[in-house]
Amino acid sequence: MATLVEAKLAELGIVLPQPAMPIATYVPYVTTGDLVAVSGQLPMLDGKVSVTGKLGATVPIEQGQQAAQRCFINLLAQVKAACDGDLDRVRRVVRLGGFIACAPEFTRHAEVMNGASDLAVAVFGEAGRHARSTIGVPSLPLDAAVEVEGWFEIV
Amino acid sequence: MATLVEAKLAELGIVLPQPAMPIATYVPYVTTGDLVAVSGQLPMLDGKVSVTGKLGATVPIEQGQQAAQRCFINLLAQVKAACDGDLDRVRRVVRLGGFIACAPEFTRHAEVMNGASDLAVAVFGEAGRHARSTIGVPSLPLDAAVEVEGWFEIV
Amino acid sequence: MATLVEAKLAELGIVLPQPAMPIATYVPYVTTGDLVAVSGQLPMLDGKVSVTGKLGATVPIEQGQQAAQRCFINLLAQVKAACDGDLDRVRRVVRLGGFIACAPEFTRHAEVMNGASDLAVAVFGEAGRHARSTIGVPSLPLDAAVEVEGWFEIV
Repeated sequence: MATLVEAKLAELGIVLPQPAMPIATYVPYVTTGDLVAVSGQLPMLDGKVSVTGKLGATVPIEQGQQAAQRCFINLLAQVKAACDGDLDRVRRVVRLGGFIACAPEFTRHAEVMNGASDLAVAVFGEAGRHARSTIGVPSLPLDAAVEVEGWFEIV
Repeated sequence: MATLVEAKLAELGIVLPQPAMPIATYVPYVTTGDLVAVSGQLPMLDGKVSVTGKLGATVPIEQGQQAAQRCFINLLAQVKAACDGDLDRVRRVVRLGGFIACAPEFTRHAEVMNGASDLAVAVFGEAGRHARSTIGVPSLPLDAAVEVEGWFEIV
Repeated sequence: MATLVEAKLAELGIVLPQPAMPIATYVPYVTTGDLVAVSGQLPMLDGKVSVTGKLGATVPIEQGQQAAQRCFINLLAQVKAACDGDLDRVRRVVRLGGFIACAPEFTRHAEVMNGASDLAVAVFGEAGRHARSTIGVPSLPLDAAVEVEGWFEIV
């Protein structure tokens, strides 16, 4: 039987990927008490970074938002693993950190990051409302346009 | 009756603003256990970003410090809301993250961020001594010169 | 009698420095519950930043990895102080944040940060496997090439 959050994901037409394994000695998430710290996620899709380049240069706002959304989907896949497959155990999206690769004169970071934030609320409702910090960066691993990390509270 | 921290704020001549509402699906803070994660705050003053531009370019150190101080005042306004108006419930400023918009050759980030750190200790005394990370960024939302985020422990 | 972690450090030929005192109103770490938030550490060695400059410009990958490793050693020195000298009290390296000073076209941040991550696992074994976020930055305090911050769970 699908969980409530899974039903919402289906309604939104979102298919969670297999959670990506980092190719290094770090891990995708660590649970400490009832908090889960999830590693920064890139907009991976089918094994590749789906949006590369920089906002304010080669990447338009809409594409940046899609990248942020994809990062959040990948966060969800990790959190699902942290919850042994039951996303209804997520009590709160505590904090998202958004890193936007951009030209130095770019100023619309918040709009880009809304791609992740709006999806969090669409999926979890009030429990999806999170604290967040969004900053520009000169570049990200693998030339990704966006990276999003998260802290979640689970039961 | 004013609380102890409020009395200290008055002594320092600091008037807390109404906590700014983010214009998005995220929220200014989330409480998890006895920790409060506060969203990255810009140096908003009277509804506008008070210091824009970059350190090492158009923004002198002193103005950057004032921006960092303003960010911390805005963090305080959020923490006060998280504490239902009673700042004496703050047991510790746990961690501040400082993001300094700057030219690539800028190296005095720590001095700029002291504008926030010094105020934390002026307001809270020993409980205001915090861990911190300070980094340069190419740009911030709305062209802000500084952004500061925080984790606070409350009772 | 040396602790298990200290024995491992000796085996790796790593000598922990005296934990560096920040020259400001912030502190190197704050303990909240069973979490320790450690301030962003630069690759300080004998009182100086050991690697300055930017990846993708003047700093080769290997040197960046050494800088990340040095940052982690400095994190360890702080965590040891947080544990009153007993590193066996570290239950988990929860999360590392890696900041890589780099040229805008640099894309190999993850490899650089592995200098810290690999050491975490070499020292702590499975307890050293951590969540992590790695981003590029235009510049860091004192022109450091790398900065690493951390959250640790202790008993």
